[in-house]
Amino acid sequence: MNRLPDSELIMIPGGTLITDSPEKGRELAMLIARHTIHNIQPDLDVLKEGRKIYSIDPASLIAASQVVAIEFQTIAAANNYWRRDKK
Amino acid sequence: MNRLPDSELIMIPGGTLITDSPEKGRELAMLIARHTIHNIQPDLDVLKEGRKIYSIDPASLIAASQVVAIEFQTIAAANNYWRRDKK
Amino acid sequence: MNRLPDSELIMIPGGTLITDSPEKGRELAMLIARHTIHNIQPDLDVLKEGRKIYSIDPASLIAASQVVAIEFQTIAAANNYWRRDKK
Amino acid sequence: MNRLPDSELIMIPGGTLITDSPEKGRELAMLIARHTIHNIQPDLDVLKEGRKIYSIDPASLIAASQVVAIEFQTIAAANNYWRRDKK
Amino acid sequence: MNRLPDSELIMIPGGTLITDSPEKGRELAMLIARHTIHNIQPDLDVLKEGRKIYSIDPASLIAASQVVAIEFQTIAAANNYWRRDKK
Amino acid sequence: MNRLPDSELIMIPGGTLITDSPEKGRELAMLIARHTIHNIQPDLDVLKEGRKIYSIDPASLIAASQVVAIEFQTIAAANNYWRRDKK
Repeated sequence: MNRLPDSELIMIPGGTLITDSPEKGRELAMLIARHTIHNIQPDLDVLKEGRKIYSIDPASLIAASQVVAIEFQTIAAANNYWRRDKK
Repeated sequence: MNRLPDSELIMIPGGTLITDSPEKGRELAMLIARHTIHNIQPDLDVLKEGRKIYSIDPASLIAASQVVAIEFQTIAAANNYWRRDKK
Repeated sequence: MNRLPDSELIMIPGGTLITDSPEKGRELAMLIARHTIHNIQPDLDVLKEGRKIYSIDPASLIAASQVVAIEFQTIAAANNYWRRDKK
Repeated sequence: MNRLPDSELIMIPGGTLITDSPEKGRELAMLIARHTIHNIQPDLDVLKEGRKIYSIDPASLIAASQVVAIEFQTIAAANNYWRRDKK
Repeated sequence: MNRLPDSELIMIPGGTLITDSPEKGRELAMLIARHTIHNIQPDLDVLKEGRKIYSIDPASLIAASQVVAIEFQTIAAANNYWRRDKK
Repeated sequence: MNRLPDSELIMIPGGTLITDSPEKGRELAMLIARHTIHNIQPDLDVLKEGRKIYSIDPASLIAASQVVAIEFQTIAAANNYWRRDKK
């Protein structure tokens, strides 16, 4: 198995849900979503094969974006929606 | 790869979840959903091919609208549901 | 393209999430869900073709009803669940 | 079209999310979920055909039960989880 | 029809969402999810046939576990996450 | 049946939703998701066969990661998002 490095298996990179901005929160949501996949399937070769399939399949792209949306709900709530950042 | 311009890859366009109205909040929800897809698949040519498929497939349209609904939940909560805008 | 009229593309018809009753809130949830689809696919002819497919497919009907359920969660929270309307 | 009677098309039967008990709240969740389907597809004959398919398909039964779970989240929150009914 | 006994059709077994522990809350979530299926399809023979299919199908097992996750969200909130039980 | 040991069937390992850190909370989310599957299908041999299928299927991996995301929402809320752990 071509195992991912340990850094790719950390479940909450940075160790906190608190971020400086919505943009950073969204990046964290994507990262957490990806690292969850890594933890279920830590073989880089299998992941690369999977990427070829899902990255050109609209239904899979929509499904992946939904997971990010759900992760972001949690992160946004954790940050009180960054309300002080209101323009 | 026909890479999308950077502006299409910003995860939270405008940098805030706070909007002036529900309508603007909903537009943001759609934009965030789209840009998430862009970040997973930044090749415009692949996206255009995918559009041909999902935009005429009812199941995909329903799935896409669900992602928008989830994004909107977050944005609506961030804005306290725009309650002062009550008619 | 047989484009839908602009009124069908408004994302939050009425411009507010606040409604007089749960029934009105549910109607709004359905309307918002439909208008999201309209914004992703504004061609009426394509929508009519899609309707023929999903409206007789149980899995699609269940999926569509789930989107309405999610939209309604947001609207119900916005209205504090219409608790004063308790019988 | 063999149209459902109007009573089957009311979106929130009883006109309120407030119920006397969790059991009644769950019944309401199922009813709301069903009536949403009715509003999307009000032809009883089509619904009966669909019932034959989804009621024996495990994936569809799971999907349907998920919609009920989501509706119940809203109703349970509306009722403050019936906490006074704690045994 | 080989109809399930009435006890299998109670929607909220025990009549309350309040439980003594997270473990009991999780058991209730599974029970509620199952009884929802029972209410949609009360024929034990059909359920047994379905069990043969979904219980060996990973996608169905994942889908079923998602329903339990959603039910548990509601029950956990009802119990204020059993915070006093913190170790 | 090659039944899983009882420890794999505990629904909330540790008996609490409260954890010391987001990382630990995420691990708990994965564990709870897995043990739910175990409770629905406690035969290790069937699970191992299923693993061969879903672990190389992108759609299944995305679906599994969504369940973890939903479990984590609950756990994160239970822990008030570990806000005191803010860096």
